[in-house]
Amino acid sequence: MAHRVRVIEDGSVTSTPGFEAAGVAAGIKAGGAPDLALVRSVRPCAAAAVFTTNLFQAAPVLYDRALLGRNPLGLRGVVINSGCANACTGEQGLRDAEATAAAAAQHAGGSANDYMVMSTGVIGQPLPMGKLLPGVQAAAQALESTVEAGHRAARAIMTTDTVPKEVAVYVESDTGGFTVAGMAKGAGMISPNMATLLVVFTTDACIAPGLAQQALAAAVGVSLNMITIDGDMSTNDTALLLANGLAEMPDIVSTDAPEYAAFVEGLTDVAVALAKGLVRDGEGATRFIEIRVSEAASLAEARQVGMAVANSSLVKTAVYGQDANWGRIICAVGYAGVPLDPYAVRVWLGDLELVRDGGPYQVDEARASEILAQNDIPIRIALGRGNAEATIWTSDLSHAYVDINAHYRT
Amino acid sequence: MAHRVRVIEDGSVTSTPGFEAAGVAAGIKAGGAPDLALVRSVRPCAAAAVFTTNLFQAAPVLYDRALLGRNPLGLRGVVINSGCANACTGEQGLRDAEATAAAAAQHAGGSANDYMVMSTGVIGQPLPMGKLLPGVQAAAQALESTVEAGHRAARAIMTTDTVPKEVAVYVESDTGGFTVAGMAKGAGMISPNMATLLVVFTTDACIAPGLAQQALAAAVGVSLNMITIDGDMSTNDTALLLANGLAEMPDIVSTDAPEYAAFVEGLTDVAVALAKGLVRDGEGATRFIEIRVSEAASLAEARQVGMAVANSSLVKTAVYGQDANWGRIICAVGYAGVPLDPYAVRVWLGDLELVRDGGPYQVDEARASEILAQNDIPIRIALGRGNAEATIWTSDLSHAYVDINAHYRT
Repeated sequence: MAHRVRVIEDGSVTSTPGFEAAGVAAGIKAGGAPDLALVRSVRPCAAAAVFTTNLFQAAPVLYDRALLGRNPLGLRGVVINSGCANACTGEQGLRDAEATAAAAAQHAGGSANDYMVMSTGVIGQPLPMGKLLPGVQAAAQALESTVEAGHRAARAIMTTDTVPKEVAVYVESDTGGFTVAGMAKGAGMISPNMATLLVVFTTDACIAPGLAQQALAAAVGVSLNMITIDGDMSTNDTALLLANGLAEMPDIVSTDAPEYAAFVEGLTDVAVALAKGLVRDGEGATRFIEIRVSEAASLAEARQVGMAVANSSLVKTAVYGQDANWGRIICAVGYAGVPLDPYAVRVWLGDLELVRDGGPYQVDEARASEILAQNDIPIRIALGRGNAEATIWTSDLSHAYVDINAHYRT
Repeated sequence: MAHRVRVIEDGSVTSTPGFEAAGVAAGIKAGGAPDLALVRSVRPCAAAAVFTTNLFQAAPVLYDRALLGRNPLGLRGVVINSGCANACTGEQGLRDAEATAAAAAQHAGGSANDYMVMSTGVIGQPLPMGKLLPGVQAAAQALESTVEAGHRAARAIMTTDTVPKEVAVYVESDTGGFTVAGMAKGAGMISPNMATLLVVFTTDACIAPGLAQQALAAAVGVSLNMITIDGDMSTNDTALLLANGLAEMPDIVSTDAPEYAAFVEGLTDVAVALAKGLVRDGEGATRFIEIRVSEAASLAEARQVGMAVANSSLVKTAVYGQDANWGRIICAVGYAGVPLDPYAVRVWLGDLELVRDGGPYQVDEARASEILAQNDIPIRIALGRGNAEATIWTSDLSHAYVDINAHYRT
């Protein structure tokens, strides 16, 4: 089956038919910034989600994981607050998550079991329920299916993000078409593993929860799990997919169905675009760095090497300073934990092959400076061990990152 | 056997009887700063060394490793240059390392097999042999046994270090006494594993190479392998122990000998003091952070958790900003990879028990601010899993770290 994926300009989670959204200021953040989002489907959704592998899982992560187990077919939506992560808050945190879902049901319809909850912000402080619960009511009253309502939701989940991250695509084929849309937040504490940050995908594709979960894992594996900003994996990472099945298309009944491939492609396109958007808006980022590791023996080892380079403070500060200090790349490759042959490794900065046969090769400082003056920095590393490859995206380490994180709570 | 360890004030590697040193400016660094050190023993030494586990091992590391295998009993000394790491320099790098050792033999006596070589500085540039070889000659002519000559050597191995790191102790017991002294350099690319940075220990203890190697591994395991500044493991890390056997004491013939315990204690004291000194002078450091992880199931997992916290950019920037954002500590504990029970973990900042039973406990922001205003920040983490513990030392992440590393080569 031929299919094609078309980007929807100015898309939001409400670009998907049958979804409504709202973003309001509940007073959780100081200064009156929007801090509470609600996304609702007009009919129950098949749901899939991936969560952080951090052992200190925030209350909403614990709550949502249990909820998904008992209600994978009937979810209606999700409430998301910024300004407070509801992490490391013990039993009270779980009760607050439950009360938030109950408030969503009360004001937006359905039962408490129909709503997931997500939180992002400072760890270790209780949710200010006196502000949050009226906020849920206000958000329910403000629900709209306009694209602008989706934009307001995307703004309400931001913390140190400077721009909202939203992407929508339409996937068209002989047998019908469907929309996949998503929004994401996250600019620091970004080093996901099996899930990441807060992401909500909406789709009207007709897909069952098990297949939706497989598709989500596949898409996240090559997108959100391939980024790092500072090497810190959050306690709250959650990516949720809601599929309301409103599209005119055959039901996706197996991974062999041509529509499944189309769905994974559309979802992956949205996830990759959101992942890159997160990195471009990484805390203090002045450069977008793409690290392609090829000739690896496996995807896992390609990712391991790429992540070691991407998380090196020395590589990141050198890119910030526009210094072609490729020795730091080689250094990180050498401690990544993959048993490679140093003489087989090659390293490129853009079109310059900097390292070959264990030493400098095309070291052209003038050309290197030109490449490092670009906004997007392409680094390629060939390991000489096999045919697997992975692409990692990261940002540089700047004075602004230190500014933002030295006084985050104040 | 009772023994006691006494710190020698204003010590240097030449505090040990029978050792001479020199530090000169060979012109490898711009601006005429000292950049070439030579340490020589008046008689052949038993030697032991530990090296980086980075797979891109610098030429001097490859050279020294082979040399130690063929001449563990006859080493006379070591030549160390700063300003150029001779790493990723291929076959030429190995020839340059060999020529440096040969020059030391020619001018300072003995054969090329009697001298180790160490290099530190920029990766990927060839050693400027036209400057280095005359520098070796000048250093040989300047060799002295005075404490000041040791100080000059310690200054000549500095790169981004702002102060030299030197420690000497005298170990006295019923059966005699001996000196252990050391110098170290390193302020960035510091995350050692099985060896670290450049360190030279001198001793006049009477110890055979095999036992010296065991003692060195034991001392490094609780000192240089317990520090991290930026999570980047260098290509050049080397710690060398030279024992010339001039002391009046029984030969150390086994690990059961009381003198062996005394030697390990003295060597460990020197190594820990140097390790702490390296962290205090970490690139851009404004705070010295001590992370004690207790109640672990093993030393390895205690270290793993401590290193995850110590390498967290978010923990390090929070300490820099004097922000008691303990959620970031918990977050790093949670992704360290140790299968712990979040509800069993406790976290202290100084005398404040911040986290207990999965949530905040004694969170006293006023007292936390007082503690974070100190130069030394004590963090304690109890895992509730066993009786093992480890102490990690690290520095904060400041604007100055970014300054130093954005333009290191220029």
